[in-house]
Amino acid sequence: SSDSSETGVKVHEFSVYEINERDRESPAVLKLSKKQVFSLGDLIPFTNKLYTGDLEKRLGISAGICILIQNKPEMKGDRYEAVFSLYFGDYGHISVQGPYLTYGESYLAITGGSGIFEGAYGQLRLQQIVYPFKIFYTFYLKGIKGDLPEVLLCKSVEPHPDVEPSAAAKATLPEAAIPNFTD
Amino acid sequence: SSDSSETGVKVHEFSVYEINERDRESPAVLKLSKKQVFSLGDLIPFTNKLYTGDLEKRLGISAGICILIQNKPEMKGDRYEAVFSLYFGDYGHISVQGPYLTYGESYLAITGGSGIFEGAYGQLRLQQIVYPFKIFYTFYLKGIKGDLPEVLLCKSVEPHPDVEPSAAAKATLPEAAIPNFTD
Amino acid sequence: SSDSSETGVKVHEFSVYEINERDRESPAVLKLSKKQVFSLGDLIPFTNKLYTGDLEKRLGISAGICILIQNKPEMKGDRYEAVFSLYFGDYGHISVQGPYLTYGESYLAITGGSGIFEGAYGQLRLQQIVYPFKIFYTFYLKGIKGDLPEVLLCKSVEPHPDVEPSAAAKATLPEAAIPNFTD
Repeated sequence: SSDSSETGVKVHEFSVYEINERDRESPAVLKLSKKQVFSLGDLIPFTNKLYTGDLEKRLGISAGICILIQNKPEMKGDRYEAVFSLYFGDYGHISVQGPYLTYGESYLAITGGSGIFEGAYGQLRLQQIVYPFKIFYTFYLKGIKGDLPEVLLCKSVEPHPDVEPSAAAKATLPEAAIPNFTD
Repeated sequence: SSDSSETGVKVHEFSVYEINERDRESPAVLKLSKKQVFSLGDLIPFTNKLYTGDLEKRLGISAGICILIQNKPEMKGDRYEAVFSLYFGDYGHISVQGPYLTYGESYLAITGGSGIFEGAYGQLRLQQIVYPFKIFYTFYLKGIKGDLPEVLLCKSVEPHPDVEPSAAAKATLPEAAIPNFTD
Repeated sequence: SSDSSETGVKVHEFSVYEINERDRESPAVLKLSKKQVFSLGDLIPFTNKLYTGDLEKRLGISAGICILIQNKPEMKGDRYEAVFSLYFGDYGHISVQGPYLTYGESYLAITGGSGIFEGAYGQLRLQQIVYPFKIFYTFYLKGIKGDLPEVLLCKSVEPHPDVEPSAAAKATLPEAAIPNFTD
């Protein structure tokens, strides 16, 4: 965490991993465009698991929808408009809205939150690691009342394709999950 | 309404009822998952009527979408991600994003607003009364410029399954509706 | 731009045009209600082009979804709930949520932003010019750190049905587009 010297508003920075372990029937690819390639009209509701940046603790889930905007053959990927929330058990949730580019990183807007994240605003950096199974997020969070819990302020594992949550976190053992982790 | 002693930001608290009177063709249950039980892929656009907490005045409507995230057989219900707005006639609207659990209460993020609700943030508590026909909402609203109109600050009827809007409010008689109530 | 005398928070005002040039396969009209007239259940993902208010420079795109709420035969139009973002190349994006009425103007909530629009809140006025091809937006933006770039503070062309972007802007010539305009 750091202070923004320009405004005096504290920026709370922390990172989490979103991992699709293929056990939540996610994503649901709705090919409503009825075209062969991804096209405007296709919708992709999704829900994956969230872990701390050090991959040692299960936090909760992601939940929301990706709206296909445009296939980008020159980038070998797609632009989506994403509207979703990230859930952190008893701590609450953070809602976001903005771009998801399967071929690169992007910044979404933090639109609000609940629980300890009440009043949240700022930006969320999204870094694709393995499409569509592993994403690394970094929050630049403002507006919350207190400090973040220590569990979120751990030192992150550097993003790379082979990252995996710890076995204990995958098994949501009590010492490897936050209180009432969202599932 | 009360002051938050920690920050000096005023919290405007008020409650409203959302009632589905089955005359708006809502909800539209889009079973796009093509599975028998509710599953990721199902989408539920909806629009219901909003009344003051004392059920004496028609305010407007709700409008938005619920994204089915997961059926929870052990809870006999479902987790949705909800993105919608609440409309209050000439007063403006409040937009929200977050969890809707058919088996319990939840807190959504207030993402913004228009009119007297310009600049709104904070949380919205959602309490299910009769699924999917009656919901009781309590706003914990910050960021707005003025005070709320008296009509929103009425004493609420305690939520219970038999609550009904007054006949005058249902009929949107002039004395039982806010100016240019949304319909 | 002007100061709000009530709160001391600066309101950044600027306007842009959204133009559907029919070359992005937008909108995608998903008639999921399976009814003849537009009805709850119909969804309309869309992405159009954004130009400066003077129509001299290409800015980027719009991207999101309109959720049909109600057909209004007496207004010869429809009420939608809209959730979308407006993209401004290297400057970032602004996300919004709220009403879209095909028969009039409306105010949406600004829910957040990225880049120079980080921390954005306030309202967006939407004025229909030619349905569904030309829309004029005016932002009343608060919460951003710096001043808006000059290119956004140009004098707008008055909205009317015949407005067209300049040929240079349509062709996205370097002098008629912002840096890395979104496409």
